[in-house]
Amino acid sequence: VVDEHAALLQSLLDANEAFYDAFERRDIDAMSDAWRHEDGVVCTHPGWSTLHGWAKVGASWAVLLANQQRLQFILTNPIGRLTGDAGWVTCEENILDGPGGSTVAALNVFERVDGVWKLVAHHGSVVHAFGG
Amino acid sequence: VVDEHAALLQSLLDANEAFYDAFERRDIDAMSDAWRHEDGVVCTHPGWSTLHGWAKVGASWAVLLANQQRLQFILTNPIGRLTGDAGWVTCEENILDGPGGSTVAALNVFERVDGVWKLVAHHGSVVHAFGG
Repeated sequence: VVDEHAALLQSLLDANEAFYDAFERRDIDAMSDAWRHEDGVVCTHPGWSTLHGWAKVGASWAVLLANQQRLQFILTNPIGRLTGDAGWVTCEENILDGPGGSTVAALNVFERVDGVWKLVAHHGSVVHAFGG
Repeated sequence: VVDEHAALLQSLLDANEAFYDAFERRDIDAMSDAWRHEDGVVCTHPGWSTLHGWAKVGASWAVLLANQQRLQFILTNPIGRLTGDAGWVTCEENILDGPGGSTVAALNVFERVDGVWKLVAHHGSVVHAFGG
């Protein structure tokens, strides 16, 4: 049971990494594949109000990924938690964006559908202060 | 089954509201009661990096609630989703804080423990733009 939990947790962290790989490569197909396509999915980009439903969430990613500027993510501190067929990961997205950079704290919620983790909620916000 | 789901969803939304009631009343006991007290809980206050574990999360709330200034929340657009014994709510916290105000988008994840929803993840971020 311990091994099973560890393997499931690893698959959750792998799904989280695949999401950021899609973001970094600006791969709209991979980004679409990372998400459930349902009315109930939610996405809060840094500084945005929350988008509800795959139609709006998918459209927002299409716009964000269309930018041609080179983008590099260094993910730090990914920590996952499982509760049945739900799981979530917190991590920091350290983004090298052109000459500058920023750190975004993220909370990503996944559901396991036919054995595959799919994003159903993403919330990112720019870190202005170190909280502890 | 539909009624059971609706009742469970309502209890999730009620737990979310109890969390904000505790915040608004600056009631540290009620705030403590709203959370699971575990190493695996996470909390991202607006602009902060993510705090891990109840020790740090609880301490952050003690500091935030110690402020004596009158605080009023108007919650809008609370939408919940259930997956087994996990559930999450997105909402906007419209905060009247002294003479000013702000809107915070939030994602709150709960686990159902002995029939009671307990917060395990909170992520709030100030809304600067309307995303759609």
